[in-house]
Amino acid sequence: MKIAIAQLNLHVGNFESNHDKIIQYIKSAIKSGNDLVVFPELAICGYPPRDFLEFNDFISKCVSSIQSIAKKTKDITVIIGGPSKNEMGKGKPLFNSAYVLSNGEIQKVINKTLLPTYDIFDEYRYFEQSREFCIVEIGGKNVGVAICEDLWNIGNNPLYIQTPAIKLKELGAEIIVNISASPFSYKQDKERKKVLKENAEKTELPIVYCNHVGAQTELIFDGGSFFMNSNGEVVKQSSFFNEQLLEAELTNGEFSQGEVQSGSKIQLIHNALVMGIKDYFRKLGFKKAIVGLSGGIDSAVTFALAARALGNDNVYGVLMPSQYSSSHSIDDARKLSENLGSQYEIVSIEEIYSIYNEKLKPLFKDLPFGLAEENLQARARGVLLMAISNKFGHIVLNTSNKSEAAVGYGTLYGDMCGGLSVLGDVYKTEVFELARYINKDAEIIPENSITKSPSAELRPDQKDSDSLPDYTVLDKVLFEYIENRKGPKELLKMGFDENVVNRVLRMVNSSEYKRYQTPPVLRISHKAFGMGRRMPIVAKYLL
Amino acid sequence: MKIAIAQLNLHVGNFESNHDKIIQYIKSAIKSGNDLVVFPELAICGYPPRDFLEFNDFISKCVSSIQSIAKKTKDITVIIGGPSKNEMGKGKPLFNSAYVLSNGEIQKVINKTLLPTYDIFDEYRYFEQSREFCIVEIGGKNVGVAICEDLWNIGNNPLYIQTPAIKLKELGAEIIVNISASPFSYKQDKERKKVLKENAEKTELPIVYCNHVGAQTELIFDGGSFFMNSNGEVVKQSSFFNEQLLEAELTNGEFSQGEVQSGSKIQLIHNALVMGIKDYFRKLGFKKAIVGLSGGIDSAVTFALAARALGNDNVYGVLMPSQYSSSHSIDDARKLSENLGSQYEIVSIEEIYSIYNEKLKPLFKDLPFGLAEENLQARARGVLLMAISNKFGHIVLNTSNKSEAAVGYGTLYGDMCGGLSVLGDVYKTEVFELARYINKDAEIIPENSITKSPSAELRPDQKDSDSLPDYTVLDKVLFEYIENRKGPKELLKMGFDENVVNRVLRMVNSSEYKRYQTPPVLRISHKAFGMGRRMPIVAKYLL
Repeated sequence: MKIAIAQLNLHVGNFESNHDKIIQYIKSAIKSGNDLVVFPELAICGYPPRDFLEFNDFISKCVSSIQSIAKKTKDITVIIGGPSKNEMGKGKPLFNSAYVLSNGEIQKVINKTLLPTYDIFDEYRYFEQSREFCIVEIGGKNVGVAICEDLWNIGNNPLYIQTPAIKLKELGAEIIVNISASPFSYKQDKERKKVLKENAEKTELPIVYCNHVGAQTELIFDGGSFFMNSNGEVVKQSSFFNEQLLEAELTNGEFSQGEVQSGSKIQLIHNALVMGIKDYFRKLGFKKAIVGLSGGIDSAVTFALAARALGNDNVYGVLMPSQYSSSHSIDDARKLSENLGSQYEIVSIEEIYSIYNEKLKPLFKDLPFGLAEENLQARARGVLLMAISNKFGHIVLNTSNKSEAAVGYGTLYGDMCGGLSVLGDVYKTEVFELARYINKDAEIIPENSITKSPSAELRPDQKDSDSLPDYTVLDKVLFEYIENRKGPKELLKMGFDENVVNRVLRMVNSSEYKRYQTPPVLRISHKAFGMGRRMPIVAKYLL
Repeated sequence: MKIAIAQLNLHVGNFESNHDKIIQYIKSAIKSGNDLVVFPELAICGYPPRDFLEFNDFISKCVSSIQSIAKKTKDITVIIGGPSKNEMGKGKPLFNSAYVLSNGEIQKVINKTLLPTYDIFDEYRYFEQSREFCIVEIGGKNVGVAICEDLWNIGNNPLYIQTPAIKLKELGAEIIVNISASPFSYKQDKERKKVLKENAEKTELPIVYCNHVGAQTELIFDGGSFFMNSNGEVVKQSSFFNEQLLEAELTNGEFSQGEVQSGSKIQLIHNALVMGIKDYFRKLGFKKAIVGLSGGIDSAVTFALAARALGNDNVYGVLMPSQYSSSHSIDDARKLSENLGSQYEIVSIEEIYSIYNEKLKPLFKDLPFGLAEENLQARARGVLLMAISNKFGHIVLNTSNKSEAAVGYGTLYGDMCGGLSVLGDVYKTEVFELARYINKDAEIIPENSITKSPSAELRPDQKDSDSLPDYTVLDKVLFEYIENRKGPKELLKMGFDENVVNRVLRMVNSSEYKRYQTPPVLRISHKAFGMGRRMPIVAKYLL
């Protein structure tokens, strides 16, 4: 039995392009003699469709697209994800389903039994949980069909009562197919292999695992689909961050050997962010990015990643010095643009800043220079970037890193502006690693941008370290508070300094209102700001 | 049997103040001889606690607060909402529970059986659904305890299989107590009474219904708790938008008569928004609001509502004319401030706008005046408002209405800035009604602000009607698309003009990225922008 995994980059709600791409892959799979081709979860409409699922017109489009695809299955069996209507008259109106298509028709609709409703997942918002398990005969084999989270409990996940893989085995499955939408984090590939290995070992069945690839607003899908043998070994794996039709022969219950993927944490993050930028622009129909270049490391890394995603000719740097900018800032930013051969412009904010101060003088009188004046500079820059964006139809990329976003060390509508946050899930210490990685073959990011002390340059001789703990300490506290949801008592028990904990947590808590208004953040960790982290703004926090 | 409903305004995560307030109400209830006092759902921590529920420290604080309150129940029974740990080792780690306290101890913990996971609700994100139903004996009566959504299925809601009220009746309940967190919309009081009436009629039992009051970021709780007799009649009801201890005597299975509440749609919206503003400021520890006054109706209504919420002395108007402002704009804005006796300042943006144009000239060259220049003016104003905000520590109120927010007729970081959106869930046609309502006793909002043609005044002789369909038509299409989730095919079937539908839907769809970055919107309808409406940014929409 020959099986193909179609790891595709789909576009949420773009039924025409998704439909055509799926048919093209079915044709390829037929051509190379496959008995079965597997597509990802909710492939028909793209993942995540979110509240589109509440529109009847949307569900109708899903259904007619599947019916049209079914007609192309005379010479192959297709397993593909899409929503289906819950006809029981009880529970949520939809199921998250796997459609089995062959002989030109829909043969079976199999529904998801474990619905992730945590972090970025809202599946129970839309879907009813199925309590039925199903196998189908394909090419003389009993195939157990599971949908993503269905294999996330093999008896050891306290969240769930059902263990689908065991049920499928009991029903006589000889192989399990899992169609999935598993977003990237830098540890997700390992996590997936571990969980699926447990399923294989406990059932002694081989597994076909098909994932999405491509970015959907903040979510990045890395692909990395694979064939796993019954001992839990991944024997053949699709590449990360690329569309691919991966094929394997199942002989005597085991798959043929092939290439397997891996990558360092920083390499994966780098490639994920490049894909995240690329797909945001491509799927929205934009070509060029604007980045405000300060000479610092965050804007430099953002600019370099954008250049890799969109091409050096499609990134546009804007240097906006003030009287507080150091000379090396301009030099470093200019050097970065020149290293890439990218366009840049210099627009000073000095006079703009002066006129604001002058107009506000009757209100501010002799109040001392402070946060208002610092933010004014950042906002004057934001206005310039947005004006250029509006004039030329390019998208401004936000350059805030996760450490800054966490503690609110940034100006709303100023340096926190933009259409997409590239580094909002990358801690400052990781930004340094990314810069080194980008420079591994040649100096793209000027060495001075990496080695100098981080500064916002909004007043004379300002340094980040005036306002924040050292980034190596700060990032550790933030990681435990944000990623691992450790409260203040737990952090103290872990040995962190009480003053640091109190100071950091206060900063994070009092900045929820800022993060509420920031652009979508490309997610690369297991807990990013955005849809996966839902905190109240008006609240007294855990201190 | 005498029962008290404690309709409280609690503060998410503020355990100290919630605890003390709850104890104060228990003491009052004891003093006036009640057998039972009922508090709202998750009263112990405030509703909605959102991802706080994922922190162990937070749950520990909930538990110890309830233990402390239990000690005060020697002379009364208390039913109060709080999270409890799921000790089954299966399913979500928490239950959403009603604690029954008496004799100084926790007597029983009863868990929610229907978990709303739609619109603004995310309960299955945190809580396991209970399948057990429970009655408790209080004052010689069998009391069936239900938590909010538990009474939202009496056999007629396709979402759910269980019908808790029927189960409680079967267990011998003689009265049902429902502790609730039911957010305001202008039709919610009627909806609640209708649903609870069906429960009373089908079970022939009286119902005690206790709701929250007060605003929590975007959610407004209107209170309106009540005693309902077994025929489904509300016989006594707490006021809307106020804390209250409401008491009633249960004699022969029926409650004593008292006052019942009602209000017109606009009156309710008005009072809800006033409470929404008031609680946002009070709970965050702020006193004063800044509003950019254009002379138009949206900023005038926002300013007037803020004055009612915070006091006339605590609202600060900023008039920011440009060369495109009409003379009546300044006059109308000034008159509004003077009618209220509120402070205002005039800061012209003419020179600021000029210097931006000058600095951008080398980039923009001879490209014609357009959107970039219009947005520049709005953003120059945003920068001024935020600078004043930063300098004096006041909060900027956003003035965008729902019609504008829907079609993207606003400038990100310009007029879309602010800490809180007051009118973001109020359609333009409703803003006019609000203005009339505010002026019902005396002219607060200058008549000219109400009667003149709406204009953004960003270029000579601009009118909203140049860019948008007439608001009476626009708002109807928007209402069907947003509130009722009708897709384009359904809208055409309803008789809307195809060109208008296509134009409006395109505008709504292409503005998701703007709404992603706007401040929290006070929710007054059954479908507001914000946490209750989750649409992708990168997607091809239904057209």
